[in-house]
Amino acid sequence: MLQFQEIAKSEKTSARAGELHLVHGVIKTPVFMPVGTLASVKSISPEELMECGAQIILGNTYHLNLRPGCDVIEKFSGLHGFMNWEKPILTDSGGFQIFSLAKLAEITEAGAAFQSHIDGSRHLLSPERAVDIQTCLDSDIMMCLDQCIQYPADWQTTKNALELTTRWARRCRDHWQQTTKRKNALFGIVQGGMYKDLRSISAHALADLDFPGYAVGGLSVGEPKDVMYEMADHTLPLLPDHKPKYIMGVGTPEDLVELVALGADMFDCVLPSRNARNGQLITSSGNFNISNARFRHDTDPIDPQCTCYTCRNYSAAYLRHLYMAKELLAYRLNTIHNIHYFISLMTAIRSAIINGEFEVFRKNFYAKRAGGK
Amino acid sequence: MLQFQEIAKSEKTSARAGELHLVHGVIKTPVFMPVGTLASVKSISPEELMECGAQIILGNTYHLNLRPGCDVIEKFSGLHGFMNWEKPILTDSGGFQIFSLAKLAEITEAGAAFQSHIDGSRHLLSPERAVDIQTCLDSDIMMCLDQCIQYPADWQTTKNALELTTRWARRCRDHWQQTTKRKNALFGIVQGGMYKDLRSISAHALADLDFPGYAVGGLSVGEPKDVMYEMADHTLPLLPDHKPKYIMGVGTPEDLVELVALGADMFDCVLPSRNARNGQLITSSGNFNISNARFRHDTDPIDPQCTCYTCRNYSAAYLRHLYMAKELLAYRLNTIHNIHYFISLMTAIRSAIINGEFEVFRKNFYAKRAGGK
Repeated sequence: MLQFQEIAKSEKTSARAGELHLVHGVIKTPVFMPVGTLASVKSISPEELMECGAQIILGNTYHLNLRPGCDVIEKFSGLHGFMNWEKPILTDSGGFQIFSLAKLAEITEAGAAFQSHIDGSRHLLSPERAVDIQTCLDSDIMMCLDQCIQYPADWQTTKNALELTTRWARRCRDHWQQTTKRKNALFGIVQGGMYKDLRSISAHALADLDFPGYAVGGLSVGEPKDVMYEMADHTLPLLPDHKPKYIMGVGTPEDLVELVALGADMFDCVLPSRNARNGQLITSSGNFNISNARFRHDTDPIDPQCTCYTCRNYSAAYLRHLYMAKELLAYRLNTIHNIHYFISLMTAIRSAIINGEFEVFRKNFYAKRAGGK
Repeated sequence: MLQFQEIAKSEKTSARAGELHLVHGVIKTPVFMPVGTLASVKSISPEELMECGAQIILGNTYHLNLRPGCDVIEKFSGLHGFMNWEKPILTDSGGFQIFSLAKLAEITEAGAAFQSHIDGSRHLLSPERAVDIQTCLDSDIMMCLDQCIQYPADWQTTKNALELTTRWARRCRDHWQQTTKRKNALFGIVQGGMYKDLRSISAHALADLDFPGYAVGGLSVGEPKDVMYEMADHTLPLLPDHKPKYIMGVGTPEDLVELVALGADMFDCVLPSRNARNGQLITSSGNFNISNARFRHDTDPIDPQCTCYTCRNYSAAYLRHLYMAKELLAYRLNTIHNIHYFISLMTAIRSAIINGEFEVFRKNFYAKRAGGK
């Protein structure tokens, strides 16, 4: 059963450091969770993830249910055995993928009926089925099925979606209580778009359902940055402080620092891995596109201070060459660097919180990021 | 300076085991050399190459001269520093790539004028320039520039090409002697197509030029397998036995066994890495396409006897899933397995030769390969 302890708190902000005990291990928060949608964090191995300091990774219910399917993963007693990853796994429920990927999605009280984006086959993902699939995946943390909506959306549409999300959350919780031993945790997802009153309704309704942890969904979907922070600032305090608080699908290094300051404990985002595959390297002194001609003869690592495998062993010129030549190794080396950077950032944030220096850290972080190579 | 010692020889065949001393280390022959055309063995890292047992890898003069260019690689004092590989490197001269890839190639006595396949820029690769580029790359073994021709080709065309190849070989050798300290070796390349008389002329002419080692080029270009073996069988004995003999661009596991039996010491081929990227896994009990549905639920490694990283850690079902989902990790895991298999095969061949059991090994090898999973 999930246990969460807050072990330190910043004075002037809501930033906090904690420990989250899960079936497959203890993770230190705040934490960044690399995204391994299809049972692989794209281009990198479990050992490389460990060397990057990854404590927990994501898998995706929608994707894994379509490919390879639960009938395959259950032969391995879950995702851990299937993909050779022993540490904790969190799986997203698939709500967002049905919204963003699936064809002809039809949302009813029963669940989400949709066509597979791969072969057009028809599927129904009900709240109960979402829990069943995640039970089969043996995720340390499962997520409730939620209804995601477009940005912008009007108040009534947003309200309808959050109310359905709340009813589904109750069904997920009931099914989880009835069919599992509750060793693997289930998180509720707060929705409510960019409306504070709806965020409040959602947060209170979910808090009543007493989930082991809470996520804030539906952020970073196209809204202005200040709106995103405003919504997080409004929502996070409404969630119970003795439980972990997870902001889904966000964000940039700056977002992580700001959202930690607002009280968030957990993050996932494809940004470091996707940007890596597009040649964007994220460092403590800013972001660089490796295709830039100025790196052509650069015998230094992309970040001389960085201790990742890529920066310890390869020059910016070599990374540029691999990327320009579309060599597969490029994607791996870039991904290792970016994931390592995100995880190291969280480690540094955590130390700063514990040492009572979060505000100083935050100031230095911005000064450095603006520096440039 | 290159040194070669034959340390064991099979009784009934020409198979032999040897040691080749190069600037960056000693390699044990017979040896399979993974191909790292663009300063990367596609999808795998130097550490993974080492774990696969790689002793020496290939780079390519044509490709590296176009991308990233010698002006970049010389900043790293050569290819080793650029790509983070400390062991020996052999570079092909580019003759084959001008023939197969470059546009509007025009072969004259001076050299090969061609348009880059990347940006259409005009280049002239002369024999001297080929040596200069390889000197910049600091290859342990450089190859002479040769003229490659289509298969089939008539006797006169083949003769003309081999004669030009021989004149270029002399110019390469002279330039190498005059401009380098000859620590890095230079190999001559026997041509002559599928004509034994021309192969003899080529071999004798090159032997007169006294290269540190010899390659047989122009095989496995579309000719029937028995013709390829016939040409190798005819040519290899014409080359001086106290020097290493290298068959370029060949081949299947069966080819390696047969060509070792005919006296070849060195091999390179894209087959294990290219086939890996196409989902074909090569094992001691045959070749398997990982996309086959029978692997869908297979919790065993693709080859339970194999000791490679892939087979130690991942099931056939996981490899199939990654491949079907086009996950980048698929290409890496498949490549590691195939390269490991090729190198292990050479290690086993070498032990068999040293133990006087090559004929037994060869028989068992065929029996097993025909076995199937």
